[in-house]
Amino acid sequence: MSVTAPALGHGRELVDPALRKAISRLDADTRLIASYHLGWCAPDGRATSAPAGKAIRPSLVLMAGEAVGAEPGDLVAGAVAVELVHNFSLVHDDLMDRDTERRHRPTVWSVWGDAMAVLVGDALLSLAHEVLDDSGSSYAVVASRALNVATRELISGQVLDVAFEQRDDVTLAECLDMAAGKTGALLGVSAELGAILAGAPPATVAAFRRYGQEVGLAFQLIDDLLGIWGWPERTGKPVFSDLRSRKKTMPVVWAVQCGGAPGRELARWLAGSEEPDEHALQHAADLVELAGARAWAEREAQDRVEGALAALRGLGLDPIRRDELAALARFVVERDL
Amino acid sequence: MSVTAPALGHGRELVDPALRKAISRLDADTRLIASYHLGWCAPDGRATSAPAGKAIRPSLVLMAGEAVGAEPGDLVAGAVAVELVHNFSLVHDDLMDRDTERRHRPTVWSVWGDAMAVLVGDALLSLAHEVLDDSGSSYAVVASRALNVATRELISGQVLDVAFEQRDDVTLAECLDMAAGKTGALLGVSAELGAILAGAPPATVAAFRRYGQEVGLAFQLIDDLLGIWGWPERTGKPVFSDLRSRKKTMPVVWAVQCGGAPGRELARWLAGSEEPDEHALQHAADLVELAGARAWAEREAQDRVEGALAALRGLGLDPIRRDELAALARFVVERDL
Repeated sequence: MSVTAPALGHGRELVDPALRKAISRLDADTRLIASYHLGWCAPDGRATSAPAGKAIRPSLVLMAGEAVGAEPGDLVAGAVAVELVHNFSLVHDDLMDRDTERRHRPTVWSVWGDAMAVLVGDALLSLAHEVLDDSGSSYAVVASRALNVATRELISGQVLDVAFEQRDDVTLAECLDMAAGKTGALLGVSAELGAILAGAPPATVAAFRRYGQEVGLAFQLIDDLLGIWGWPERTGKPVFSDLRSRKKTMPVVWAVQCGGAPGRELARWLAGSEEPDEHALQHAADLVELAGARAWAEREAQDRVEGALAALRGLGLDPIRRDELAALARFVVERDL
Repeated sequence: MSVTAPALGHGRELVDPALRKAISRLDADTRLIASYHLGWCAPDGRATSAPAGKAIRPSLVLMAGEAVGAEPGDLVAGAVAVELVHNFSLVHDDLMDRDTERRHRPTVWSVWGDAMAVLVGDALLSLAHEVLDDSGSSYAVVASRALNVATRELISGQVLDVAFEQRDDVTLAECLDMAAGKTGALLGVSAELGAILAGAPPATVAAFRRYGQEVGLAFQLIDDLLGIWGWPERTGKPVFSDLRSRKKTMPVVWAVQCGGAPGRELARWLAGSEEPDEHALQHAADLVELAGARAWAEREAQDRVEGALAALRGLGLDPIRRDELAALARFVVERDL
């Protein structure tokens, strides 16, 4: 089944101007670099129209909040804040991973150097709090607290990711924790912020957080598969990109732990250090598949989508809104497979 | 006149446990590295008693808040938040400047690598907001907004600092702006947060911010002088450290712009690129002095202290509290000269 995502980009006509207004608060140098990173201009400041991101996080804030009765205008600050936190983490991630390209364009550190990448990321994180605190919402403090916790979890996930590079004994549980932090936390808080800013009761807020966290894990599982088999023309992600760096993604760790003889062979290959050629990479990808890890990850992603939908049951949501949220969850899994 | 700073370390018995409690929220890896950075443990986690910092920012929060009638307990979250923001910026600064030592100990990036330095800094910034939002103060949102603005100014100051490295035409006004951001903003918001958390009226809050900003500029002017003439045994700052990297500090920029023939000779030396020997550094320092920039910076720092004291006049503060705040401002200037 091919799923389009009608609700992605939802509210963009409100969120984009608010995001631009937030960015305009930054000093001139930081503003230029942030605008470049967001795809609004070339490195010299000339306006461009780089393809916009999917803005899944802002969409989630709006969809969740509207599902429990908020007006879009009450939700925009939350949508802008999560998009800023997401982009803070992208700018710092690209630097930490020494990635030279993002969406077919040079990354911030590769154009402006390490120091500016550190500072621009810092500025975006700080700006996220500024936007939320200045929203005038009577739920601003509760929203800000939720964003703080999610940001801490996001950073913890990155810390685990860095630590895993030095370790040969990463367990699947640790790997799932890492993904829950790296991807689940921010999608979780996106849905959560929508509910908070709508003034929903705590149980509803928790249900939306759970929905977002499950969608996030499904998203990361699919992303990990794309990191092995890629889909350059659709996602810009080259084939074997994560294998090339011997990254301990969820399917790889599952294969090593649960995948019998192919898993053991994969573990030996991961422990090596020679630069792999295309043949070796193809063989490693085959081992992941033979171990059953591709099928496991696809099934696990489906289960997470089911978990996301289950979290929303019993909340008495309008069926149209609930279907939109369900379609978004399914889109994440089926987008690129 | 030698000035001790009786009020520095004021409230430490309240702030230190709260700071440790905040740090304990972090995941294990981040917590270890943050604890090391704060001087609480060795890189392997063994408790140490590295000399504590002066904690000038937390002291300012407490002194300002108590001067307008708050109980110390109402101010602790603000004190912890500014100390966390300060340390976020130190961890990222050391990385950006590739400084290998801080207070005679290896810096975070030099022990744990670039990625962990980025992440630990990020975690400390996020934690600052978490502490303030969780304070339960009815002034939490106002305090958080003030901290946001100051953090943005702090980052802007750093951005200018990075940009200046590539430029030969930095004006004194730009240089003062940079210092106002890099040092003034955080000392300003420290005093401001004290007043905010005490529930002081806006005019009083603004006066305290001004006091802190002026103290901050005085502090930076003295720091710039120490960056030229140093005082290794007291500050850990080696002689000529800023000259060695041809850093465009305030006295250097003043000398170039306003310092006649010695200033012009200094400008030519700054434009060079050969590795300077001790003789060349001594000569450059002599040029700064001959240009009158040492005297200018000392006078300017004194003027800033006067400005700080002027900001507090007319607020009807208890004379003992006002004298404490005056002593702190004077201490900053006279600490090391």
